[in-house]
Amino acid sequence: MLDATIDADVFRESVDAIAALVTECRLHATEQGLRTRTVDTANVAMISLELDKDVFESYQATSSEMGIDIVKIKNVLSMMGKGDPVHLALAEESRKLEVSFQSYQYSITLLDTNTIRKDPNAPTIELPGKVVISGAALSAAIKAASVVSDKIALGIDPEKGIFYMEAEGDTDHIRLELGDDKLISLVPVQARSLFSLDYLKDMGKTMSKAEKVEISLGIDHPVEFTFDIADGKGHVMYLLAPRIEAD
Amino acid sequence: MLDATIDADVFRESVDAIAALVTECRLHATEQGLRTRTVDTANVAMISLELDKDVFESYQATSSEMGIDIVKIKNVLSMMGKGDPVHLALAEESRKLEVSFQSYQYSITLLDTNTIRKDPNAPTIELPGKVVISGAALSAAIKAASVVSDKIALGIDPEKGIFYMEAEGDTDHIRLELGDDKLISLVPVQARSLFSLDYLKDMGKTMSKAEKVEISLGIDHPVEFTFDIADGKGHVMYLLAPRIEAD
Amino acid sequence: MLDATIDADVFRESVDAIAALVTECRLHATEQGLRTRTVDTANVAMISLELDKDVFESYQATSSEMGIDIVKIKNVLSMMGKGDPVHLALAEESRKLEVSFQSYQYSITLLDTNTIRKDPNAPTIELPGKVVISGAALSAAIKAASVVSDKIALGIDPEKGIFYMEAEGDTDHIRLELGDDKLISLVPVQARSLFSLDYLKDMGKTMSKAEKVEISLGIDHPVEFTFDIADGKGHVMYLLAPRIEAD
Repeated sequence: MLDATIDADVFRESVDAIAALVTECRLHATEQGLRTRTVDTANVAMISLELDKDVFESYQATSSEMGIDIVKIKNVLSMMGKGDPVHLALAEESRKLEVSFQSYQYSITLLDTNTIRKDPNAPTIELPGKVVISGAALSAAIKAASVVSDKIALGIDPEKGIFYMEAEGDTDHIRLELGDDKLISLVPVQARSLFSLDYLKDMGKTMSKAEKVEISLGIDHPVEFTFDIADGKGHVMYLLAPRIEAD
Repeated sequence: MLDATIDADVFRESVDAIAALVTECRLHATEQGLRTRTVDTANVAMISLELDKDVFESYQATSSEMGIDIVKIKNVLSMMGKGDPVHLALAEESRKLEVSFQSYQYSITLLDTNTIRKDPNAPTIELPGKVVISGAALSAAIKAASVVSDKIALGIDPEKGIFYMEAEGDTDHIRLELGDDKLISLVPVQARSLFSLDYLKDMGKTMSKAEKVEISLGIDHPVEFTFDIADGKGHVMYLLAPRIEAD
Repeated sequence: MLDATIDADVFRESVDAIAALVTECRLHATEQGLRTRTVDTANVAMISLELDKDVFESYQATSSEMGIDIVKIKNVLSMMGKGDPVHLALAEESRKLEVSFQSYQYSITLLDTNTIRKDPNAPTIELPGKVVISGAALSAAIKAASVVSDKIALGIDPEKGIFYMEAEGDTDHIRLELGDDKLISLVPVQARSLFSLDYLKDMGKTMSKAEKVEISLGIDHPVEFTFDIADGKGHVMYLLAPRIEAD
């Protein structure tokens, strides 16, 4: 059972964060709020999203699992005005999510959760290098790299005290070095891994609005991005597997 | 013969209303003004448009019939600035319409009216259910329905005193109910018919700018939309045939 | 060798002027500034562009020739903010142009100039008819003609003291006449030539921002457009061959 009201913009921000990686997900409602954790079909990237019940204007739920078609929800979202209160309702044992706003009442049939892959385990990798940066700066760096290549190296040079990104195309090259003055904070541990820009570009669009994004890095290890949405009451984590560096 | 001057925005609004349904039409000039009545190629929808001579900054005409290529006129319109006075001139016996604005003089060859289907008769159906609603609200409802389906039911529930629209997709559903507080007026006669959203979406774009649209409805009957353009001096009527409700 | 700093907007304006005609060019650096002269692959249009060293915030160069991939440079430009200072550096004997702005450092491999066609000679045609017009008015006239045709006649009628353009489509026609009041100046020598709108549309986009464009015309001769960029410190000349007038 779910009976909750949420601001349309917060709802849109949450759905967009998920839509950057997947087209369907299992959404869990509990007494504490909504959450999802899901990996993309290629098993390369994971998103974990949590919305505390405080995010909602009103919230009541018993433990339930919903199979959500993200594309369908995005279409419905496109009809909502800025700041509309959106009412979400799922009756006990029902397979239909009611989404209402203004005078509109949508009834959306849920996906059978048996057809959606199981929730992945929480990641347990240690990523000692930490960088905190504005979402806008991170998103711009990702775009800048995509001009010359389809992959990007993210790294920390502890001697210079910088976070860097580097992309190598067939003929061209870009390097960006950001020191203390351009970062919010840095834990200067040696780190460098290579990632696919395809994934990062989609994640970058979502992260571009975040005031700050924490990046956790290792050596040839995944990268983890964590950031808040909805004034700090919603939390998103992206995890992206590294690519093998070819010579 | 025609010799008239019209504001570019009013001219654009009129042409857009016609372009929502057809790509060519017979335009009739009389001493009283310009008018056209035409049905789309599938015989599903009709538009009737009248521009009183008061709409024009200056107007002089003798009874004439012009075959208009709407797409061509739209291209020429795209060159006009907001509020440009546009001069339209058709010489006696001429097959060329002169369209001038700023220092530009276009000469547009008219279509042979024999190649354009005859004007349809005026509709004589009785549609007792009446709703008056803002064009913006009507257009938003049409868009909202298209998220889940390609057809929409429009109806009046006289007991509840509401105008409603309902769309049923393969898996999803939307319902919108509008009472006194959201309508300009309502004649509460039982009505309900099903329509194709393809047509309604195109009409909706034109109607979205109208302050008010009168909707006339019956039971499994066509729907008629009437609204003004050009500060009440131009009148548009759309008529759309119903679709058969399949079970 | 080249070591120069330029405003991103001036750089963008210069690159766009070249991109209107070609996708690669030989760029010459001298002590006096940068310049290129190149013809399009069909040998129909030529661009000559000069950027005085005064255009640059700082400038130092020895005589060098660079093979520039315009598309690549445009991609890098898309990352620059409005008014960013852009640093361009080419080391002696290097085949890589370094382009830096903000904290970004791009390294762009130059094209082998042997693969790019030789610089054309400076044109020596006499074009006695002269018109000076705002870039916005010129660009609008080009767009207006493209509504009815794919070629345009540009001419001067010395008796009427007007510059005119005329386009003849299969069925439609446009004529624009501009007298003293719409022109900055006119040298009323009889002139008229026909040109391809494909080329003019691309040139028109670039010229639309110029305060004034000097048009030089003859009878069935090329047309030359000259205008300034970068507050008069950069100079562009387009030359376009005429088309044969078919009856």
